[in-house]
Amino acid sequence: MLPLLGLVLGVVGTIYAVYLARWVLKQDPGTEKMRKISEAISVGARAYLFRQYRTIGLVLAVLTVVIGVGIGVLAAASFLIGALGSMLAGYLGMYVTTRSASRAAQAARNGLGPALRVAWRAGAVMGLALSSIALLAISGLYLAYSNITREWALPLVALGFGASLITLFMRVGGGIYTKAADLGADLVGKVEVGIPEDDPRNPGVIADNVGDNVGDVAGMAADVFESYIVTLTAAVFLAWIIGLPLEFIELPILYGTLALLATFIGVAALRTSNVRDPMKSISTSINLTILISVALFIVASFAVLGRYGFLEALAMGVAASLGALLTPVILKITDYYTSFNYRPVAKIAEQAQISPATVIVTGYGIGLMSAIPTIGIISAVLGVTYYLGYTILGDVAAATYGTYGPLLAGIYGTAIASVGLLSVAGIIITADSFGPVSDNANGVVEMSELPEEVRNATDVLDSIGNTTKATTKGYAIASAALAALVLFIALIFEVVRAINALGYSIGLSDILKSISAANPNVLVGAFIGAIVVYLFSSRTLGAVGVTAMEIVNEIRRQFRERPGILEWKEEPDYARVVDIATRRALGEFVVPGLVAIVIPLATGIVLGWQALVGLIFGAIIVGVPRALLMANAGGAWDNAKKYIELGHFGGKRSEAHKAAVVGDTVGDPFKDTTGPSLNPLIKVLNTLSVVFAFLIVYLNNHMGIVLTGLLPFII
Amino acid sequence: MLPLLGLVLGVVGTIYAVYLARWVLKQDPGTEKMRKISEAISVGARAYLFRQYRTIGLVLAVLTVVIGVGIGVLAAASFLIGALGSMLAGYLGMYVTTRSASRAAQAARNGLGPALRVAWRAGAVMGLALSSIALLAISGLYLAYSNITREWALPLVALGFGASLITLFMRVGGGIYTKAADLGADLVGKVEVGIPEDDPRNPGVIADNVGDNVGDVAGMAADVFESYIVTLTAAVFLAWIIGLPLEFIELPILYGTLALLATFIGVAALRTSNVRDPMKSISTSINLTILISVALFIVASFAVLGRYGFLEALAMGVAASLGALLTPVILKITDYYTSFNYRPVAKIAEQAQISPATVIVTGYGIGLMSAIPTIGIISAVLGVTYYLGYTILGDVAAATYGTYGPLLAGIYGTAIASVGLLSVAGIIITADSFGPVSDNANGVVEMSELPEEVRNATDVLDSIGNTTKATTKGYAIASAALAALVLFIALIFEVVRAINALGYSIGLSDILKSISAANPNVLVGAFIGAIVVYLFSSRTLGAVGVTAMEIVNEIRRQFRERPGILEWKEEPDYARVVDIATRRALGEFVVPGLVAIVIPLATGIVLGWQALVGLIFGAIIVGVPRALLMANAGGAWDNAKKYIELGHFGGKRSEAHKAAVVGDTVGDPFKDTTGPSLNPLIKVLNTLSVVFAFLIVYLNNHMGIVLTGLLPFII
Repeated sequence: MLPLLGLVLGVVGTIYAVYLARWVLKQDPGTEKMRKISEAISVGARAYLFRQYRTIGLVLAVLTVVIGVGIGVLAAASFLIGALGSMLAGYLGMYVTTRSASRAAQAARNGLGPALRVAWRAGAVMGLALSSIALLAISGLYLAYSNITREWALPLVALGFGASLITLFMRVGGGIYTKAADLGADLVGKVEVGIPEDDPRNPGVIADNVGDNVGDVAGMAADVFESYIVTLTAAVFLAWIIGLPLEFIELPILYGTLALLATFIGVAALRTSNVRDPMKSISTSINLTILISVALFIVASFAVLGRYGFLEALAMGVAASLGALLTPVILKITDYYTSFNYRPVAKIAEQAQISPATVIVTGYGIGLMSAIPTIGIISAVLGVTYYLGYTILGDVAAATYGTYGPLLAGIYGTAIASVGLLSVAGIIITADSFGPVSDNANGVVEMSELPEEVRNATDVLDSIGNTTKATTKGYAIASAALAALVLFIALIFEVVRAINALGYSIGLSDILKSISAANPNVLVGAFIGAIVVYLFSSRTLGAVGVTAMEIVNEIRRQFRERPGILEWKEEPDYARVVDIATRRALGEFVVPGLVAIVIPLATGIVLGWQALVGLIFGAIIVGVPRALLMANAGGAWDNAKKYIELGHFGGKRSEAHKAAVVGDTVGDPFKDTTGPSLNPLIKVLNTLSVVFAFLIVYLNNHMGIVLTGLLPFII
Repeated sequence: MLPLLGLVLGVVGTIYAVYLARWVLKQDPGTEKMRKISEAISVGARAYLFRQYRTIGLVLAVLTVVIGVGIGVLAAASFLIGALGSMLAGYLGMYVTTRSASRAAQAARNGLGPALRVAWRAGAVMGLALSSIALLAISGLYLAYSNITREWALPLVALGFGASLITLFMRVGGGIYTKAADLGADLVGKVEVGIPEDDPRNPGVIADNVGDNVGDVAGMAADVFESYIVTLTAAVFLAWIIGLPLEFIELPILYGTLALLATFIGVAALRTSNVRDPMKSISTSINLTILISVALFIVASFAVLGRYGFLEALAMGVAASLGALLTPVILKITDYYTSFNYRPVAKIAEQAQISPATVIVTGYGIGLMSAIPTIGIISAVLGVTYYLGYTILGDVAAATYGTYGPLLAGIYGTAIASVGLLSVAGIIITADSFGPVSDNANGVVEMSELPEEVRNATDVLDSIGNTTKATTKGYAIASAALAALVLFIALIFEVVRAINALGYSIGLSDILKSISAANPNVLVGAFIGAIVVYLFSSRTLGAVGVTAMEIVNEIRRQFRERPGILEWKEEPDYARVVDIATRRALGEFVVPGLVAIVIPLATGIVLGWQALVGLIFGAIIVGVPRALLMANAGGAWDNAKKYIELGHFGGKRSEAHKAAVVGDTVGDPFKDTTGPSLNPLIKVLNTLSVVFAFLIVYLNNHMGIVLTGLLPFII
């Protein structure tokens, strides 16, 4: 009954989040003008989010019915809960950020420390609320379902499917919105007309700020929330389906609970008075959380698994700890490739002296390079934790699967590592949400024309926010990769169950053989996986271009037809730009979403489950490096521009700066639309396949008349 | 003794090529000035090529000794022959192109028809010589080796290893050279100083033209030559290792021979008098070659395989034909995404009205999209030919591998399809080599300041050459993909042999199981495969940037210190730029080449052969779409710029044109350095692994003390 602890901590965490939210809302929201600007952003963001939810609602209703009829009521219920959870996460993120930006801006009048406190606590509202709600959902459903039926595990995976599907829609829609608005506003405002960023004369400025909220905030919050749910439920499911004892099934939930406890301490521990380097304070909070988590993991492992032996308990504690310790390593790697304190970004900035083209080529090359250490370290943790499970836990798993026991125990070891990584999501979301709050606060200060020294304080916070935002992208991708790998194995076992349920008698040996890399079916499937990633990336990038073009034309029109705007005599029509961005983003986000649902289902049903396994394999191998490339190249271009703005190579307004701006603009949809959308994409492909595995195998088998000969059901 | 036919045809083809070469050399080489320019280009290209060969020579010597000692003398001999063949291919391409450019330019004084004839025949020298030499090498070695030893098949694969390794070096070195020179010359000449392309005042102009020859010509020639050898030898090897009867082993060589015969006709059939649309003439020649090949394939299949049954013979004929017919489909797909007659390129050009950044984003999106139909059609041909082999040829293969017979026969079917595709390489190289000849002719006309109407004729040929160059890139990638897939399966069987030779008794069933997609070892290997592709891409892109920067600085220096150059009063110092490009390209091409050798060997030896199989799987799945993306995005950007130069969106010198030039410049290293280098990279990884499979398995087994526990030798 360990998950009861999860329920309790989840409730405590929610209360803590509410307390912090009330504290933030009690702060002074600033001048009339500041409140007005905040209000406009908040209204635009809420309007977009609700229209998006309405569109999503349709897909959601259809899928809930399909799952209810095809899989079962419990699965439909958790699918719906997962989906609503993601929607709530997005809404919460947007609500807190828009409310707290003006308050952080106002606090900045009293200096850096007070502003840091407001922004951090606002971020913590998100971090605590999301990890608490996720933990509540998982432990609650686990306790409920496992009391109702012996087949409780699959419905639990549907929770992850709901969460990742909604996140996918939010990531894509929000990503298109935010970058099209940003691109449109910057291209006309900064480049053509020459007014600063966030200048209130720019008709696109409100849409740009709305975009930050619906894209970066709502999207990122939903993303990590979803990864958390997917990873924990997948690990639980895996433990169940390979027949491990109860303690191992509940272990992932326990680790999540303990890390939440550590997060409480980490959040509270941030130093905000007499701060000289706020980034250091934030890093300390993150590291503290991770260290406490590691200590708790080790102690708890002995308490719970002690009866299986000393080494067994230690192995699991170490596996979870390795996962958690992966966090600072990945943050550091991402920082190295995207911050201007290191060689890579400086190299891009140097190329800006030559031409925009060399900025692009060099930045792209650095993006490619940046994927390598992250994938390397993920592979290493994978290998080591597999080894731990394989050699130490093999006997425990052998009870069910005999000679395959060590293999399965090894895979469980990797699952525990991914749980360790995700368990500290609360503090990561806190640091990440701190970013857009600071960014928005900076915008409010700029638009409200507050004094220089206030802007300086929010500038510092904004630049730190940019760092936390950039580095947590690496975390999100790594966590998505590990979650996907766990799910990938879970899918294979679910297929075994499904095929056996159809009356065939299939052992693990046959299954492993049929998904051999030498099977052309697997190979074709892997190519289809690559196609899904490419199709999805192309559509989302294209959507940003098309939408931005429409926004550029609208802003150009306003400047042309109403010259008073630039002379501060007329107010621009913000609402029209907001409307264009909303309409187009909603129009463009449906197709990529459907691609993620239709292609895997069609592949599984028509070409067989081996092709589906190949598809997911291919999507992971192609998608994870691509997500890293796009996120990090985007971050590096962004900071190369900032580096030049600090006065290098001619500084602002130089030719080098113009070249760097091109890089930054290319990087925007890379890092904020397509790159981050690949995380939920990979997990939707996965969770969908697990949830519908029975249906896919059944339908494929019944169409076998045509296809059995073509691509054998089992080799 | 079917391969005797190959020997005969190979000799005939060589004679035909010599005849055409003599004809081309007999043409008027033009004015003194034209000859002088040609000479300068030719000297620079030869100097680079020889210096490159000297560097390669070292690697070659070491590897020949290693193979001779570790694998055997026969393997070392064919490795060396393959390597020398690739070097000869590159040299030949360079020699013919540099000699024929001024002659084509001179012929253009008499109109389009005569110029077309010279350029086409020059291209045909390459096409015929390379396919003939390749066929001679394969059939000669096959006949010799199979008479010497029963273990003749593996040494044959070493032929492909030699060819692909040298091609890799040439592709990378030449690719860096050509694009750095092009970029450097254009950035200062066209963008900063505002003089036209190929203007003799530009100090980088000779280096730029040398680059075309050492990169596009020598590189592409070696690339297709190598694909041809790898595919045919891999198919022969596969047939042998899965134990098919002799006819099936010799079938690939027969198909190659027949297609060469068809190529003779296709080359001779080009209409050059009264030509209005030379592109149509070229397409007709290509299509004619393919249709004759298909007819010959079907007839020959019945003649040779008739005794196995009607369907059996038909199935193989159809598989080879499907491969050959893939050629026009892939050319068409590539044309659609890269020519300005269609929507995608027009869309990029439209975005040029907004900014360079949107040109990049949109073009990148189109590049991503362009990979999809090509991969889709490759997968479809793969599936269909696998099905043909599986259902129709299963019994024949069952003799050796029992229940796995159909699987193996299916894989042989896909190998035959890839042979069909590659067999028409002669006519494709002809069309492709036509491109640089026209391009160089155009350059000679420009630099020699010949009259407007001559330039118009060479302009037409140049633009057609651009199309054939762009579309054959798609062909080269598709052929590399299919060759790699055949080799990939061959590797698995070679591993079976190696493990059994070590005294273990391992069946195909165990092997298939151990390379299951569920094996973490395979997964980690696939991630390493992705890392190899990313590392390689990043290094090559970075090298172009660094080298270009040095060239830019040198050209800027010359213009600054000697202002007389721009006023036609002084001659620029071409040699210094040539020297910089040569030195840097040679310095930068070694590391990426070693990556391709060291990482697969290390992975196989340390992590085991399953990880190596995963590595190659991952490299194919990540590398093939990436090659298509980079080649096609580059082609699309190039033509978007040309589309604007035709007068759209403001034409030359407009802001839109400037934006499009940025896209074109980014696209250059994409399409001419990194993209095409991925073809030989994938095949080097593959051939290397097959050739060293015994050594890898042996060493891994002996290090097993440490590692067996970590990642099991066999699950």
